[in-house]
Amino acid sequence: MIRALLEVRSRAWLTWLLMIVPLLPGCATRGVGDMGVIIERATGSVEVVETTGMSVLARVEGLGDLSHASVVYGRDGRHAFVFGRDGGLSKVDLLTGQLVGRVMQAGNSIGGAISQDGRLVAVANYQPGGVRVFDAETLAQVADIPATDASGRNSKVVGLEDSTGQKFVFSLFDSDEIWVADLNEPSKPRLTKFTGIGSKPYDALISMDGRYYIAGLFGEDGFALLDLWHLDGGVKRILPDYGRGEKRSAVHKMPHLEGWGLTEEFAFLPAMGRHEVLIVDRVNWREVKRVPVAGQPVFVMVRPDGRQVWVNFAHPHNGKVQVIDVPSRKVVKTIEPGPAVMHMEFTPRGEHVWLSVRDKDQVDVYHTDTFEKLKSLPATKPSGIFFTFRAHRIGL
Amino acid sequence: MIRALLEVRSRAWLTWLLMIVPLLPGCATRGVGDMGVIIERATGSVEVVETTGMSVLARVEGLGDLSHASVVYGRDGRHAFVFGRDGGLSKVDLLTGQLVGRVMQAGNSIGGAISQDGRLVAVANYQPGGVRVFDAETLAQVADIPATDASGRNSKVVGLEDSTGQKFVFSLFDSDEIWVADLNEPSKPRLTKFTGIGSKPYDALISMDGRYYIAGLFGEDGFALLDLWHLDGGVKRILPDYGRGEKRSAVHKMPHLEGWGLTEEFAFLPAMGRHEVLIVDRVNWREVKRVPVAGQPVFVMVRPDGRQVWVNFAHPHNGKVQVIDVPSRKVVKTIEPGPAVMHMEFTPRGEHVWLSVRDKDQVDVYHTDTFEKLKSLPATKPSGIFFTFRAHRIGL
Repeated sequence: MIRALLEVRSRAWLTWLLMIVPLLPGCATRGVGDMGVIIERATGSVEVVETTGMSVLARVEGLGDLSHASVVYGRDGRHAFVFGRDGGLSKVDLLTGQLVGRVMQAGNSIGGAISQDGRLVAVANYQPGGVRVFDAETLAQVADIPATDASGRNSKVVGLEDSTGQKFVFSLFDSDEIWVADLNEPSKPRLTKFTGIGSKPYDALISMDGRYYIAGLFGEDGFALLDLWHLDGGVKRILPDYGRGEKRSAVHKMPHLEGWGLTEEFAFLPAMGRHEVLIVDRVNWREVKRVPVAGQPVFVMVRPDGRQVWVNFAHPHNGKVQVIDVPSRKVVKTIEPGPAVMHMEFTPRGEHVWLSVRDKDQVDVYHTDTFEKLKSLPATKPSGIFFTFRAHRIGL
Repeated sequence: MIRALLEVRSRAWLTWLLMIVPLLPGCATRGVGDMGVIIERATGSVEVVETTGMSVLARVEGLGDLSHASVVYGRDGRHAFVFGRDGGLSKVDLLTGQLVGRVMQAGNSIGGAISQDGRLVAVANYQPGGVRVFDAETLAQVADIPATDASGRNSKVVGLEDSTGQKFVFSLFDSDEIWVADLNEPSKPRLTKFTGIGSKPYDALISMDGRYYIAGLFGEDGFALLDLWHLDGGVKRILPDYGRGEKRSAVHKMPHLEGWGLTEEFAFLPAMGRHEVLIVDRVNWREVKRVPVAGQPVFVMVRPDGRQVWVNFAHPHNGKVQVIDVPSRKVVKTIEPGPAVMHMEFTPRGEHVWLSVRDKDQVDVYHTDTFEKLKSLPATKPSGIFFTFRAHRIGL
């Protein structure tokens, strides 16, 4: 009916409508490819930004406790799923700048992931533990996976990552296990469980091809590695000397595992409790070199072309960021954006990097070749920065 | 003024407007992350598609001669730049389904590229030769780079690729050169020229990190390799036996170099004139294995997770597609979509693949794990398929 009306529309009327539509709140016609969100932790809000003009487009409020919050994107890049610390799962529409869905799915949670096909969003929970899975469209719960071990103990879940084949992989902190959940039938997850993988896995990462899942261990040295192409090979231990001799109590901040940088040949990772970045051969997992840096590294992030590695630091060195040149394996630049650099995000082709400078209430954009500061944007206690290109990457 | 009016708008009026807006041609509010275009060669048109519901959203006409056409995307993923064979450069708005810009920039051209920052679109020309560079916003010409060698001869340009640092790399077919053009100052390209790189470079590819540029040679065996991180190392020759013993006249179709598949460890490439896919070690460029396949390979494409390689073939075997399993290096599946499979494009996380079946006037979508055909979409003599995730990848 409306379609029929439109067919006989007058041109003037249409022109007028098309002219005002972009000005309407609630209807923005623009590509989402250069957009993203910035977590504002203290205020439970996110800023919607775009990277072409480097500007803030909207602020979305009411997302609850966003400490340690992370974000995944739906397959159209329009919707951000924000995982809060308080068990809240929020869905933000970047084009309208609206909170379009929110469920309190648990009492306390720590990150999530989105399925390969973009239809399922999974959340890792501390309280009551386990993983819950939601329909990305409606946020209706489609699966509940309690992390209960053979002895009946419920575990906190950490290091939840998505892989290919509709699989999610996660670690059980309290029972030293890694589970692979196949959600091809969403309401009937098929679980493959690996026990005795190492003491107290506390975080994990997955390689960009979705193949290698690596969990960090709080209770002992080294890491647990699972090759998802060869599940029958089981979980192996790598880097057995990692963390040796470090008192966990002296470590200012446990390094984020998602902050590891992987190039085709090497892994760049934060040394535990030391002012060093470790370079490790990805084939045999042997240490190749240690690069001295300005503090205890938190995020060690590879520029998309693999040519540079950017590093931020734990307190009291968190006002600095250093850049390691990959071929020479040396620090080639130190910048001082200001107090409390919390996170870094590269534009997808790597020409710029955005840095959250929490205690200056701003986000700075730097050119990665010239190191010139291009822009500062206002943000309230910014932490994580997440651009929409993540919609198209396995494990992000 | 309009803004002021809107502030006092009535709610009913706004609701009505928001309701009809999505139905209007010319205004679509949706994420572009799951969109793409399909080249319809015979009719000089493209179809705008989306991969979530697997549907055709619009057809855009008037793009001229689209034989061998290719596409790059602006950084917002909204605009596709289509390189025609007739020298036409067309800009398509995926959200409105409109042709929003078109220049006849040369008499005869062969592909193009977009700069790292998304602001410059470059086109490789046969006639009059050279490269022309355009502002992505306006399509105004910003640079003209004639491919004139030291003896004054103008050359056809092939294998134009974008790398990082606002660089474009391309090959001079008639004078056996590779040039690197730095467009940090767009109107003053800085050129680095490599001469005597091998006889008659006819196409090229660049690795996903923008580091390795590889040109195929029509006039002799082997390939020319340039490491863009170490320009002073010059151009090296690799795979010296490639093409040996093959009469070029017996090769039904010169393999596309952009059809090489690169995993982290290996390159998968079409053997010249043989029913084989070659697997080559990416470190030493030595041949590791030859996999027998159903015909002369054209595109050899790696699924985004690196686990499978999909191959289509030259006439008379172009009704088939074969899948090589990477760990076992064996063909694990042969499908027969029908006559003249021209191109393949994976969804960015790799769960589906779209195939152009030209002589059936359709595009088929297959699940890459189950090999189930999920959908057939109508398209008029479809060839290339290009999804918007390319906006975020170096060299695509």
